[in-house]
Amino acid sequence: MMDKKRIAIFGSTGSIGKQVLEVIEANPDLFSVEVLTASTSHELLIKQALQFKPNIVVIADESKFSLVQSSLKNTDIKVFAGEKSIIDVAGLDCYDLMIAAIVGFAGLKPTLKALEIGKPIGLANKETLVVAGDLVMQLAAEKRIPIIPVDSEHSAIFQCLVGEGRNKIDRVILTASGGPFLGRKPNYLVNVKREHALQHPNWSMGAKISIDSATLMNKGLEMIEAKWLFNLKPQQIQVVVHPQSIIHSMVEFEDGSIKAQMGMPDMRVPIQYAMSFPNRIAANFPRYNFKKPDTLTFEEPDLKTFRNLALASEALNKGGNLPCIVNAANELAVYAFLHNRIGFLEMTEVIEQTMTKINFIENPTLSDYFETDAEARNFAATLVNI
Amino acid sequence: MMDKKRIAIFGSTGSIGKQVLEVIEANPDLFSVEVLTASTSHELLIKQALQFKPNIVVIADESKFSLVQSSLKNTDIKVFAGEKSIIDVAGLDCYDLMIAAIVGFAGLKPTLKALEIGKPIGLANKETLVVAGDLVMQLAAEKRIPIIPVDSEHSAIFQCLVGEGRNKIDRVILTASGGPFLGRKPNYLVNVKREHALQHPNWSMGAKISIDSATLMNKGLEMIEAKWLFNLKPQQIQVVVHPQSIIHSMVEFEDGSIKAQMGMPDMRVPIQYAMSFPNRIAANFPRYNFKKPDTLTFEEPDLKTFRNLALASEALNKGGNLPCIVNAANELAVYAFLHNRIGFLEMTEVIEQTMTKINFIENPTLSDYFETDAEARNFAATLVNI
Repeated sequence: MMDKKRIAIFGSTGSIGKQVLEVIEANPDLFSVEVLTASTSHELLIKQALQFKPNIVVIADESKFSLVQSSLKNTDIKVFAGEKSIIDVAGLDCYDLMIAAIVGFAGLKPTLKALEIGKPIGLANKETLVVAGDLVMQLAAEKRIPIIPVDSEHSAIFQCLVGEGRNKIDRVILTASGGPFLGRKPNYLVNVKREHALQHPNWSMGAKISIDSATLMNKGLEMIEAKWLFNLKPQQIQVVVHPQSIIHSMVEFEDGSIKAQMGMPDMRVPIQYAMSFPNRIAANFPRYNFKKPDTLTFEEPDLKTFRNLALASEALNKGGNLPCIVNAANELAVYAFLHNRIGFLEMTEVIEQTMTKINFIENPTLSDYFETDAEARNFAATLVNI
Repeated sequence: MMDKKRIAIFGSTGSIGKQVLEVIEANPDLFSVEVLTASTSHELLIKQALQFKPNIVVIADESKFSLVQSSLKNTDIKVFAGEKSIIDVAGLDCYDLMIAAIVGFAGLKPTLKALEIGKPIGLANKETLVVAGDLVMQLAAEKRIPIIPVDSEHSAIFQCLVGEGRNKIDRVILTASGGPFLGRKPNYLVNVKREHALQHPNWSMGAKISIDSATLMNKGLEMIEAKWLFNLKPQQIQVVVHPQSIIHSMVEFEDGSIKAQMGMPDMRVPIQYAMSFPNRIAANFPRYNFKKPDTLTFEEPDLKTFRNLALASEALNKGGNLPCIVNAANELAVYAFLHNRIGFLEMTEVIEQTMTKINFIENPTLSDYFETDAEARNFAATLVNI
């Protein structure tokens, strides 16, 4: 009998975190919960803690500390608060796998800390690789730690690569649903509202990533992520719009053979795979069936309308701290859009202006990344009056 | 520097054999030709021998022996003739990989002989597994020898399974182009002629397999082959019509994740993979591109019109010597159709009547298979007046 894998969920109250707990609940013989962390959602964090009985919970929002502590006072659960505690707990040798599901740039430091102490990572936080992919992958290589992607696209590529050894990749083909505004032109997008942009046609996801899907920035960030995860050159990464979201991504090898990973658009599949890798676990998630007549379509992305993808491609090609700038400006732009401060197309303008304004650094250090991130955020904030 | 892999091509003058030689010609540092065998095409065999300089050639048709020998008299190539010589040469410990590309039931004995002396097999001969899959796979398991499929569908499944270890398969999904008569009904098929049936829409193949594709018998034989190759239950094998032949087949794992292998319909890709496995070799075969708008479609096979597939499914389900009966009757039926002795739909009648006539054996021995094959052929021959 194998020991249970002890899971530390960083960002347990978000969309990914909740689905990680679903997988654990369905497989109590395989997994236990060691750590839960949340940003501000203390009520859900408390509920999760009472159900899953981790050893440690951390609430980033320090004002919620006493509330969480008093709710868990009849348990053995240790409660901490603050951003620094999240990083400190990531450095404790008490878990077997970190699920890095904190949204945004805040996810970088705990992930680095986990890598430093040699913990495998199930990576759901895009920004970790988008911003500092060079440093993160170098550290993972030094420590010989697998970084297992949770994103459906990168999980697909990762699954296609198992068993391929040193066989060379010619290109990866990231599929994009096209989001809720596929086929639309700027004259339509200029009037798009928050509620509309949040309605993703295929995937059930958090707010930030849903907006990023609507602008195609999500696919741009994924291109950068793929570069680092799979050690690719920018020209080896192709984006193809595939509105049905059945093929989650593909790898073309040097012999011309293409492998694809497919299925219903259900994040639990890649989440569970990251948790069980290299094994798979039987699951009764809805299956994709070929029994009825069905059609899968593919087309090129419209870079003239969805300019965020073109900007992210530029960052992918130029490298340095440009992906960090794009990511920071995009976080502010999405925040402003979600709070009705700017329109849909203005998000692109915020990113473009920030890219022009912030100094380019070709080979940034970790502290350069933190400075770039702060500068880009400050500048973007002035653009959107936050 | 790795030693060259010494290839023995059993059936070198057929469609598969010629493409194996193409791969060897493009990769002279990786492969050498050790053995070439042909049934009757002595002129091509001589040409191949003079170009690739094998150590041994065998011509099955003994009447061609002196022609072949005199043509190669200024070389060191040893020349043999006759069916028995083909089996004897398969048992020589002089090669590293057998490509089993002899068409039909005649391919079984040399393959068994190669397995007996522990040689890996690149298997292009369907009948080996269709007829005697239990015996062949048992022998391969005993000798711990990989059988690497060359068929595009089984190669696709094999490629999807590398690195998956003991992860359980829920089902395999064999794709079928549907052949040249997809969508047609019996009132059309009754008048179909040889020339028309030989025109496969996607794949360039030999005559026997082209007819089997037109009747969907090919897919039925592949279902039986898949059962043995991948140790599946009949209900785990699904056939889906996919007219574009871009997805070559798929595997669904127990977590609901589906892996597919894709590409242009080009037999050189699976042929080369079987030769280079577990490695891949860079190749400039035409690539499938997603850049232009493109559509992949899927539908259920029409079992009422293409009854051969229903008959093969019945053989798959019942097992025993029934697949052997179906295979033998089908070989005779295709032969008779190719020689304009019977019509397209009459092929099904020949198979069905032979299935009813020949005694069912639940657990056949190897000699039972040979007897069944002979009986089924004799009976089918009387039906088509051969």
